[in-house]
Amino acid sequence: MILTVTLNTALDITYLVRSLRPHASHRVSEVTERPGGKGVNVARVLAALGHEVTVTGFTGGATGRVVREGLATVPGVVDAFVPLSGATRRTIAVVDDRTGDTTQLNEPGPTVTPQEWSAFQEAYEDLLSGVSAVALCGSLPPGVPVGAYAGLVRTARSAGIPVLLDTSGEPLRRGVAARPDIIKPNADELAELTGSHEPLRATQDARRRGAGAVVASLGPEGLLAATRAGRWRATPPTPLRGNPTGAGDSVVAGLLSGLAEHLSWPDRLTRATALAAATVAAPVAGEFDRGVYEQMLGRVTVSGEVSAA
Amino acid sequence: MILTVTLNTALDITYLVRSLRPHASHRVSEVTERPGGKGVNVARVLAALGHEVTVTGFTGGATGRVVREGLATVPGVVDAFVPLSGATRRTIAVVDDRTGDTTQLNEPGPTVTPQEWSAFQEAYEDLLSGVSAVALCGSLPPGVPVGAYAGLVRTARSAGIPVLLDTSGEPLRRGVAARPDIIKPNADELAELTGSHEPLRATQDARRRGAGAVVASLGPEGLLAATRAGRWRATPPTPLRGNPTGAGDSVVAGLLSGLAEHLSWPDRLTRATALAAATVAAPVAGEFDRGVYEQMLGRVTVSGEVSAA
Repeated sequence: MILTVTLNTALDITYLVRSLRPHASHRVSEVTERPGGKGVNVARVLAALGHEVTVTGFTGGATGRVVREGLATVPGVVDAFVPLSGATRRTIAVVDDRTGDTTQLNEPGPTVTPQEWSAFQEAYEDLLSGVSAVALCGSLPPGVPVGAYAGLVRTARSAGIPVLLDTSGEPLRRGVAARPDIIKPNADELAELTGSHEPLRATQDARRRGAGAVVASLGPEGLLAATRAGRWRATPPTPLRGNPTGAGDSVVAGLLSGLAEHLSWPDRLTRATALAAATVAAPVAGEFDRGVYEQMLGRVTVSGEVSAA
Repeated sequence: MILTVTLNTALDITYLVRSLRPHASHRVSEVTERPGGKGVNVARVLAALGHEVTVTGFTGGATGRVVREGLATVPGVVDAFVPLSGATRRTIAVVDDRTGDTTQLNEPGPTVTPQEWSAFQEAYEDLLSGVSAVALCGSLPPGVPVGAYAGLVRTARSAGIPVLLDTSGEPLRRGVAARPDIIKPNADELAELTGSHEPLRATQDARRRGAGAVVASLGPEGLLAATRAGRWRATPPTPLRGNPTGAGDSVVAGLLSGLAEHLSWPDRLTRATALAAATVAAPVAGEFDRGVYEQMLGRVTVSGEVSAA
């Protein structure tokens, strides 16, 4: 069982319109909605890979019920959300019919009370006892202290559970100092953390700041990993066109499933890169194309060097 | 007890953003949501005027529950919605923070099945037995036949209940032929119905098509009424600045409450005009400013001529 934590869950809504024009009225031709938030997306990919996953974090209100009902239909996913008095936020992606250009509207979400935050921390500690790995994913909702992830990383480490942290800004900076096993920043997040725009240097600097392993996602160029065991670069065969939404979450799912299955680092990176490519190739944002995934597994190149032990 | 019918109910959501830019990402700074759809808005105004109102139409899904929960908090409003398997549509008004300019996104809403439409017609007939007047308001959802309002008008007339119809296009054209007691088109709807852009001529033409009374809402110029008893023009003292959203629904509430209280036509028109002005003046779309309303009651001018009986 793998645990994913999404403190800032969302109901992700997509609207198809002919073309968004400010200050005009639009008839939405197609509405889709699904449970969202990074840890929720990671859980869905893990479940598709055949893993059992427990999802936790906060949900509340009518939108929270929709999120939970949506996840209840995904085989392999166990709902362990902690209730919130406020309503789960919505995100709305307004997609122009012809061009695919997207306008994003993100609700701020409800403020988490100190009591709710305490309730979550207790639930989290209980959930850790039954899992092989945990992923802490996404931004922090209003009301949750900025050092939240640092505390959750420490709790996991005390329980002997490997922990992956995927966030940004100050929550990432503080979280890294608590020594998570893996972090997965993108190029911007890594530069913000380390002050360096040179990925090789930055991944090593992030390790010095406390991360056991750093896997930087560099978009179409693939992944760059700095770990205790060595350094690698994983590259997809050709840059794929498509929608990169959710590709980072697929990388997290690939790394985490590989960790749970005790794969070597090169194999984890191959899987993560193939999943990211298969996510970009899928027509629906955040889903992955299984055919592309299986094809990519044999075509990702991993090069690097193993550390002298 | 007054009955309002809203076949196309909505959850009306308002987002405040700094400035909407196509293909960018926006943080919504403020979210408000409330039950919507024309008949629901009319019911809220009627309740604020001290009337008991039953609301019916369709609601379904998580958004439908929010609509019903929202109306449950309004004193004087009785919920008699008919359940729908699909989810009540959302409308999203994205308001630019500084200018107040609004971009509207309207979901199409679920398709009503023939069984659901039959269930509604039965419920409607039952509800008519206890009411003094009925308002049929707004557009038709997918699946409801275009002659729906004509049928509902006939059912009300057979039961001896005065019926007001406020819709547009083909549903209005067909509804008028069934001889509703009152219709309340705006200038565009009236022109579309009659082919005439000259309001005086058009109101009379609409009466010839079957409407007992025609009250045309002419925006800041007030109301123009053609009835069996005579013709009147009701004019607010000065054009008010503000948000005209919901002003038409306030006119319906004013006319309907005046009908239920057996007011004369000039008094009904005064009330409706004052309510519309007080709605434009209110900061929140669709609400009315009670102070402005009471002040306006003494300042609306009604001029016209009584028909020779």
